[in-house]
Amino acid sequence: MEQRVSLITLGVADVAAAREFYAALGWHGREVEETVFFQAGGLGVVLWGREKLAADGRLEDAGADGFGGVALAHNARSREEVDAIVAAAEAAGATITKAAEETFYGGYAAYFTDLDGHVWEIAHNPSFTIADDGSLQLPF
Amino acid sequence: MEQRVSLITLGVADVAAAREFYAALGWHGREVEETVFFQAGGLGVVLWGREKLAADGRLEDAGADGFGGVALAHNARSREEVDAIVAAAEAAGATITKAAEETFYGGYAAYFTDLDGHVWEIAHNPSFTIADDGSLQLPF
Repeated sequence: MEQRVSLITLGVADVAAAREFYAALGWHGREVEETVFFQAGGLGVVLWGREKLAADGRLEDAGADGFGGVALAHNARSREEVDAIVAAAEAAGATITKAAEETFYGGYAAYFTDLDGHVWEIAHNPSFTIADDGSLQLPF
Repeated sequence: MEQRVSLITLGVADVAAAREFYAALGWHGREVEETVFFQAGGLGVVLWGREKLAADGRLEDAGADGFGGVALAHNARSREEVDAIVAAAEAAGATITKAAEETFYGGYAAYFTDLDGHVWEIAHNPSFTIADDGSLQLPF
């Protein structure tokens, strides 16, 4: 198995509302059969009905009850960009679970959950390099 | 907010066991302070204690109760590769929730959950291009 991820699918209650949320953050996607695809660097981020995703994977779904054990992170290029993204997310309906603050590793990070409880960390981490194309290179 | 993901963090109960699971699939990571980082194309996949992740994000965690609303997909280069990855995952302790089968879009896909219930779809989708470097380009 090559060491890579091709798609991240976020199960959502309302595809149109979820698409609108990400559009408010500046994301442009294409909708195909009630599924929204965003090209995000070398992978796709997908919004799909949570019930459909669970059914497709033959997964027992007890329903969203909060944290699902996964967090996505978006590493910004500056602290100011962290603040701007968090403000935009809050305006779009996100729940800010942790306001931006200094981190133990010398960075600056906030967390929010989207309309469906999916977790995003927005961070500025000076030790992680972000290339012009947005790709992140781990320092080790 | 640029349209990209920097990190995918999977909350796990036992970092060493989770690392061993991904090692059995051929993934090589670096461990830093009980956190395992895998470079996966232009982003990082991270294994971190679920409780630590929840605490870091100030997230209420009712505990893992199955499907968390997120699925990662790994698009393989052939049907044979799908079968090989699923077999390796099963041998490493994954739960196969859907054995590989033809999909409605003319592909071939299986689903498994890792030791902590994180969902992976392993798919061959002839309409999604996988570059030599592993990046996926959506067709629309």
